[in-house]
Amino acid sequence: MTITELSPGASLERVADLAAQLRVDSIRASTSAGSGHPTSSMSAADLLAVLITRYLRYDWDDPHAPGNDHLIFSKGHASPLLYAVFKAVGVVSDEELMTGYRRFGQRLEGHPTPVLPWVDVATGSLGQGLPDGVGVALAGKYLDRQAFRVWVLCGDSELAEGSIWEALDKAAYYKLSNLVSMMDINRLGQSGPTELGWQLDAYARRAEAFGTRVLVIDGHDLAEVDDALAEAGQAAGEQPTVILAKTIKGRGFSEVEDKEGWHGRPFPPDMADRAIAELGGVRNLLVRGPRPDPVPAGAEGAGAAKAAVATPRYTVGDQVATRKAYGDALVALGAADPKVVALDGEVKNSTYALEFAQAYPDRYFEMFIAEQQMVAAATGLAARGYKAFASTFAAFLTRAHDFIRMGAISLVDLRLAGSHAGVEIGADGPSQMALEDLAMMRAVHGSTVLYPADGTSTAALVEAMAATPGISYLRTTRGAYPGLYPAGETFAVGGSKVLRSSDHDGVTLIGAGVTLHECLRAAQALAAEGIAARVIDCYSVKPIDSATLTAAAQATSGRIVIAEDHHPEGGLGSAVTDALLAAGQKDLSTVHLAVRGMPGSGTGEELLAWAGIDADHIAAAARHLTRNRATH
Amino acid sequence: MTITELSPGASLERVADLAAQLRVDSIRASTSAGSGHPTSSMSAADLLAVLITRYLRYDWDDPHAPGNDHLIFSKGHASPLLYAVFKAVGVVSDEELMTGYRRFGQRLEGHPTPVLPWVDVATGSLGQGLPDGVGVALAGKYLDRQAFRVWVLCGDSELAEGSIWEALDKAAYYKLSNLVSMMDINRLGQSGPTELGWQLDAYARRAEAFGTRVLVIDGHDLAEVDDALAEAGQAAGEQPTVILAKTIKGRGFSEVEDKEGWHGRPFPPDMADRAIAELGGVRNLLVRGPRPDPVPAGAEGAGAAKAAVATPRYTVGDQVATRKAYGDALVALGAADPKVVALDGEVKNSTYALEFAQAYPDRYFEMFIAEQQMVAAATGLAARGYKAFASTFAAFLTRAHDFIRMGAISLVDLRLAGSHAGVEIGADGPSQMALEDLAMMRAVHGSTVLYPADGTSTAALVEAMAATPGISYLRTTRGAYPGLYPAGETFAVGGSKVLRSSDHDGVTLIGAGVTLHECLRAAQALAAEGIAARVIDCYSVKPIDSATLTAAAQATSGRIVIAEDHHPEGGLGSAVTDALLAAGQKDLSTVHLAVRGMPGSGTGEELLAWAGIDADHIAAAARHLTRNRATH
Repeated sequence: MTITELSPGASLERVADLAAQLRVDSIRASTSAGSGHPTSSMSAADLLAVLITRYLRYDWDDPHAPGNDHLIFSKGHASPLLYAVFKAVGVVSDEELMTGYRRFGQRLEGHPTPVLPWVDVATGSLGQGLPDGVGVALAGKYLDRQAFRVWVLCGDSELAEGSIWEALDKAAYYKLSNLVSMMDINRLGQSGPTELGWQLDAYARRAEAFGTRVLVIDGHDLAEVDDALAEAGQAAGEQPTVILAKTIKGRGFSEVEDKEGWHGRPFPPDMADRAIAELGGVRNLLVRGPRPDPVPAGAEGAGAAKAAVATPRYTVGDQVATRKAYGDALVALGAADPKVVALDGEVKNSTYALEFAQAYPDRYFEMFIAEQQMVAAATGLAARGYKAFASTFAAFLTRAHDFIRMGAISLVDLRLAGSHAGVEIGADGPSQMALEDLAMMRAVHGSTVLYPADGTSTAALVEAMAATPGISYLRTTRGAYPGLYPAGETFAVGGSKVLRSSDHDGVTLIGAGVTLHECLRAAQALAAEGIAARVIDCYSVKPIDSATLTAAAQATSGRIVIAEDHHPEGGLGSAVTDALLAAGQKDLSTVHLAVRGMPGSGTGEELLAWAGIDADHIAAAARHLTRNRATH
Repeated sequence: MTITELSPGASLERVADLAAQLRVDSIRASTSAGSGHPTSSMSAADLLAVLITRYLRYDWDDPHAPGNDHLIFSKGHASPLLYAVFKAVGVVSDEELMTGYRRFGQRLEGHPTPVLPWVDVATGSLGQGLPDGVGVALAGKYLDRQAFRVWVLCGDSELAEGSIWEALDKAAYYKLSNLVSMMDINRLGQSGPTELGWQLDAYARRAEAFGTRVLVIDGHDLAEVDDALAEAGQAAGEQPTVILAKTIKGRGFSEVEDKEGWHGRPFPPDMADRAIAELGGVRNLLVRGPRPDPVPAGAEGAGAAKAAVATPRYTVGDQVATRKAYGDALVALGAADPKVVALDGEVKNSTYALEFAQAYPDRYFEMFIAEQQMVAAATGLAARGYKAFASTFAAFLTRAHDFIRMGAISLVDLRLAGSHAGVEIGADGPSQMALEDLAMMRAVHGSTVLYPADGTSTAALVEAMAATPGISYLRTTRGAYPGLYPAGETFAVGGSKVLRSSDHDGVTLIGAGVTLHECLRAAQALAAEGIAARVIDCYSVKPIDSATLTAAAQATSGRIVIAEDHHPEGGLGSAVTDALLAAGQKDLSTVHLAVRGMPGSGTGEELLAWAGIDADHIAAAARHLTRNRATH
């Protein structure tokens, strides 16, 4: 096998050879796997050939080099092309490409994930790579202060996703001249032509109107591609660049070029042979593209020294809203750790992210009312090693569900805070009430779900989140409630607190957040009637404190009341009973109080009562369980 | 109380009086409630005053009149203004406005919901009213074929939501000249100025680039407003209209005009008094605006005759993918019921919505890759009485989570179908695998969650969905599996099927979709070892067949294995155990098999095995439970 090296000075003729190699390898990989998207790869091969030979500054031996450019395939289904690039730069072998793509236990997955060290974020749910790239570019421009560029390859179908426009809007707002979006306008989607086809003018008007510099090119004219990438890569001025490349799906293989019916279909072996022949056969060019400027020693870690956190202190009995404690704690964290950054969806005065924004304006990114972009930017920031805390009303985090899910696949550590949980918020009504968020966040792979009831526990848990891998979520409450724990009390992720217990407890009451306060009131009322109730603050909904729950179940003959300000499915109740059953707990007599109707407006108290999750209903359920004691 | 009537011929001086009344009533309502958004209402009062007096064709005595225009407050927090409008047209009394707004048990909720007959869809999660309006306008133009117009009031903050741009894009694509978006550009968001402030040119470039006709006006100059509404209301041409109205937040009360810090804050009583005085006091104008043209008798119901459904028939043992059966069943439904319409997110060849699109192109709406708009359009169509089925990959329905949640609050009947569920899909990898969808859909208020395992059950359940109120969800599988049920078998929502049972069952195996087939294989293996296993097809995940589950638990001494192709939280396992515990079932010994790791690519078989949810793992779990029998 003859290996020919290609340097940045290689002629465009040689680059054309590389483009043919990328096409051929995309075909070989997908045909060998029996699945994948060769035609979507072929349309973008010329863009990538020029980029990696002449413009992408990247130390392939050190994917984490701080000066490296970033390459994100927002059209993640073009993974054959990305992996062909990885072969061309010498980090993936031809053998791996041919035997590892889309195979079980291998790292060349159907859509790229950061299992590969050269992949920043997982893509494959369209319209996410560019928003994530905005986060990476924000880090580069405002935090790392590195000269790296972020090159994002987008498909044209995904330009129908609103999230793409949220991304371009924020890219322009934050003057991300280090962000280059390469739009592969190949006219054909999965099941038919795209909305706008080859109306490049229409795309250009949109991208320009959103504040970007637009370069329209023939994506198969290497000279035009070269000029555009050169211009885009300057990262001069204050605008992000959008390259609109008119391309042909399946380019290079006449049998499929610009034809419908070939999306996501590998060529059968005989067709693949013909395609490879038409493209001039298999090649083994090795690209030695530009390298990043070396970063001066110490430059990267500058200011990254971490100090002890001066945890905010609250007094037992004093009224404080957990959302306020979130803001306080975030400021304390920010003082101690310069890697902590915050984002909010233009409700920072409600979530109290405002406190951080005021204390550390350089580390606060306002995302306005664009929750998808907020989570994506946090994902990109996290991919650059920042500890990003993103907040909005818990109800509106549902807007970013797909991005949170992809964040987990991206293996990033993300911290989310959702305020105004449940019917407790009162007058604003159901549109503003998060009643599904615990279910959503628990079902995210590897997630941590926290729901504190007072200021001290909130502050401790926000601090814990900074050290928690994966996606962590803090649910906060609108109203102020009495402090339960003295300053300095510790709260482990996966722990719980037993707030009341005795040797003769007849029933266990489990709450979190606002319902914990209701459980305490219920226990007091029950005590007056001679019923001893154990009360557990289940502030760590996932992971959950199985040992404490099991001990309580055993101590109270399986009699448990769980109250939550959430729909009945998938929340605290499920978390508790899943844990008890998994631990083999027998003889459970559970009553699960949750929000089962459609709430309207009202005061928080009225709505907690209406939903049947207030102290009176908890006490009634406990009475019912203990009254039936004899039947066991 | 003197009531003065205002007709469409009223002078703009009189309309100005009405605008003052709307402001005063917005202030009075919010101050009386102690919460709400007076300043956001005041900026749009002039727009609404002109609209309801001169342009909104509406029979207030008959909110369901087919010729009525539609008025949607996408900026739902301006509810005081909407309710002031309802007072001005005489359908809500001043007393209700002053005592009912944001109060418990009342219909004037903090954000509008269809509890009120003049409200089409619930708003309050920003960026949804306009997308919903696209659905209403699609119905008007293509299905109802009525001359009504859809007037949507948007705030400027919500223009940061990508969903707004998905909506304008689709409005232009579908030539919705009957859709008028009135953008209230008051410059101030909740926590600070908006991104674009009063850069009306910037907004105009964006809206024009997205294919709409744009009219830029001073939103407080009644003559300009009048001209713009007149022009917009023509519904001529092929473009939707966007009115960009430069307005002042808090307009009319000099103490707060254009000032930060007054979002979402009612005025204290003394301020309210000064504001009302400045606005000329309380008025009682009664608007008699334009009425819709009468619809000829029979015109509305034309073609709405419903025939019997020719349910597709599948043979036991024949391999069919449930996603294919979805397409087949949808075509059969479409033949029988002209109210059935379908939408898809540009994956119709994967979800098999393609079959419907080909059979009934006039009732199919391609939404391209814009899942939020897809669900919103379905919501708008449903608000007009159509039975909208919307499909995409189940994983990508997470993109529309907030819209699904709001659909429930909108009280619409929505049918969603998510294909390619779980690790079963194989090679495409985790980004395409729905592993959170059951948790998401179960937690939606009033939802129905169905997960069939073969063609016959899928066809029956798609038919059932057409008659199911609220949000219903069908989860389908990529691969083809053997038919289990003869054609004609019935499947009740809330039911289940016991596929294997005997008088001496030692364990119950519960599956749905692909895992049901694995349960059946496991049962066969167990039978060969002398272990009799009951097998339940839990095709109705919500509501769930509590009686059959309880009977099985009792028959098998509480020994139950549940297997699901979903993350462990909130899915089938929780549904089953929640039901058993709620039914008071004791002595449960459950094993819950679910996808606990982060999957990669592979074949479906490899991944089911890797996840521990295939027949081998189910059988092993059953053996473990039955081996421990003696310990009970």
